[in-house]
Amino acid sequence: MIQKLPDFQSAREITDTWLNVFLQPKNDLTARITEAMRYSAVSEGKAFRPFLILTIGKMLKCPPEITGQLAAAVEMIHTYSLIHDDLPAMDNDAMRRGKPSNHIQFDEATAILAGDALLTKGIEVISTLPVPAPKRCRLIAELTKAIGDKGMIGGQMIDLIGEKQPLSLSEIQQMQTLKTGELIAFSCKAPCYIAPLCSPAKRVALTRFGYAIGHLFQITDDLLDLYGKTETVGKTIGKDEKSHKSTMVARLGQEKIRLKMREYSQTAQEALTAFGKKKVADLEVLIAYIVNREK
Amino acid sequence: MIQKLPDFQSAREITDTWLNVFLQPKNDLTARITEAMRYSAVSEGKAFRPFLILTIGKMLKCPPEITGQLAAAVEMIHTYSLIHDDLPAMDNDAMRRGKPSNHIQFDEATAILAGDALLTKGIEVISTLPVPAPKRCRLIAELTKAIGDKGMIGGQMIDLIGEKQPLSLSEIQQMQTLKTGELIAFSCKAPCYIAPLCSPAKRVALTRFGYAIGHLFQITDDLLDLYGKTETVGKTIGKDEKSHKSTMVARLGQEKIRLKMREYSQTAQEALTAFGKKKVADLEVLIAYIVNREK
Repeated sequence: MIQKLPDFQSAREITDTWLNVFLQPKNDLTARITEAMRYSAVSEGKAFRPFLILTIGKMLKCPPEITGQLAAAVEMIHTYSLIHDDLPAMDNDAMRRGKPSNHIQFDEATAILAGDALLTKGIEVISTLPVPAPKRCRLIAELTKAIGDKGMIGGQMIDLIGEKQPLSLSEIQQMQTLKTGELIAFSCKAPCYIAPLCSPAKRVALTRFGYAIGHLFQITDDLLDLYGKTETVGKTIGKDEKSHKSTMVARLGQEKIRLKMREYSQTAQEALTAFGKKKVADLEVLIAYIVNREK
Repeated sequence: MIQKLPDFQSAREITDTWLNVFLQPKNDLTARITEAMRYSAVSEGKAFRPFLILTIGKMLKCPPEITGQLAAAVEMIHTYSLIHDDLPAMDNDAMRRGKPSNHIQFDEATAILAGDALLTKGIEVISTLPVPAPKRCRLIAELTKAIGDKGMIGGQMIDLIGEKQPLSLSEIQQMQTLKTGELIAFSCKAPCYIAPLCSPAKRVALTRFGYAIGHLFQITDDLLDLYGKTETVGKTIGKDEKSHKSTMVARLGQEKIRLKMREYSQTAQEALTAFGKKKVADLEVLIAYIVNREK
C-alpha cells in the first residue's frame, strides 16, 4: 500500500499567495530588507504550521481567507526563528531549506533585521485580520506567549545552555516543548478562535494534539540529523552530535525512542477522537507522515 | 535663569515599576534570558519614549496605570532595537547607557534572543492592556507598522547601506524618520487611543510634534557623537565618523544644522498650539531640553 501524504503543496501555495500580498517587493532604499524577508519566507519549506492551521481551519469551518492570512503570519514568525537560529552566534548553519541561509545569501546584519521584520510583520498581519478585535487580541496574546521568553525563545535559551552542560531528560523535554511545541500547539488551537463555533473541550483536544505532534516532529528531526542525508533533508546533517547538543534521541537510544514515538503518536490520535473520524482523516495522515518522514 | 528639565526620573521610575511586573526574575533554565532582558530594559536610560507617553497621557487624562504599562511595553521595544543595533554584525558597540552592551555582558546569542524576547513581550503586554480590544488592536497595528520593515527596521537597513555608499540629504532624512522618528511619533499619538476623548485633529498634531522632536533628538544625538564625551553621554563617542556614517550634521555642517534645529523646534511648538498653553508646559520644557542636551 502506498502511504498517503499530507497535502503540504496546497498549504505552501496558499501561504505563498498571502506572503506575496504582505511582502510586496519594493524599489526604494529599504528594498533589501523586503528581499531578505521574501528569500526565506516564500520558500521551499514544507509549510508544516500553515498546513495545521489550514487543515484544522477547514475542519472547523473557518473562512479560508482568514486562515490563509493567519497561516502566512505564523509562517513568517517561524521563518524569523529559523533565520536567527542559523546565525553564526547561534547554530551557525550555512544551509537551510536546501539553499544558503539568510546570513550567507545576504549578510549577518541583514539577516538579523530580516528576522526582526518577519516577527513584526507576522503580528501586524494578525492585528488587522478581518475578525472581531477581541479574537485578534486573543490570538496575539496567545501567540506572543507561545513564542516569547517563556515559550519558543526560552526553549532556544535552554538549547544553547545544553551545548555547554548536559541536560536531564526532563530538561530536554521542556526545551523541546518550548522551542518547537508551543508554536505548533498554537497553530493547532488558533483556528478555534476564528471558527464560528468551537467548544473549549475541542480547543483543549487540539492543543494536546499539537504538543504531541510537536514532540513527534522534534524526535524525527533529531533522528534525521543523526541518520538522514543533507541532500534529502535540505539542511546540514550531523550538527547536533558535532555541537554536543542534548537530544532525546542521543539520551534514550534508538529502541526507547521508538517507544516514545509510539506514545506521542497515540496521544495525538486519542486527542482527535473529540472529532468525527472522517473529519480528522487529514490529521491522521499527518501523524503517519511524521513518524515515517525522510525530510 | 536655571533651565527647567523634563522629569525623566519619574518616567523612569514608573516604567521600571511596570518592567519589574512584566519581567520577573525566574529560577528555571530560562532564567538567563529574563536576566538579559532585565539587564538592558530596567536601566539608567532616560526613558524618553515613556516620558512622552506618560506626559501626553496625563495631558489627555488617560488612566495612569494604562499609560504606565504602555510605557513599559514601548521601552521594551526600544531596548530590543538598541540590543540588536549594538551587535557585532550591526554597529558593534561595546557600551550602552553607561555600561557594557548586552552581548558583552552576556554573549551574542543571548543578546539576539533577549532582543527578540523584548520585542515579543512588549507586544504581549499591549495585547492584554485593560482597554477595549479594538483599541489594543489599533495600538498593535500602528506600533508594528512603526517598527517594521517600512518603519524602524527599514531605517536601520538604510543606515547600514549608508555605511557603504553616501546617502543624499533626503535619504538621510528618510532614514532618520524611519529609524527613530516612527517610534517617537507612535509614543506621542498612542495615548490618543487610550484617552476618553481625543479628536483626530489633536492626534494629527501630536503625531507632527512627535516627528519634529524625533528629528531634533536625532540631530542632537549626532552632534553629541561628534562633540560629546563618552563619560557624559554613556556610549561610545565618534563612532559615526569612524564608520563613515552619513548624518545630517556631517552633511550640512554646524551652521546649517542650527537652522534645521530651529525649524524642527518651531514645528514642534506650533503642533502644541492645538492644546492649552498650560497643558503643554512639560512638552515645551522637553523641546528646550533636547535642543540643549548634553547626554
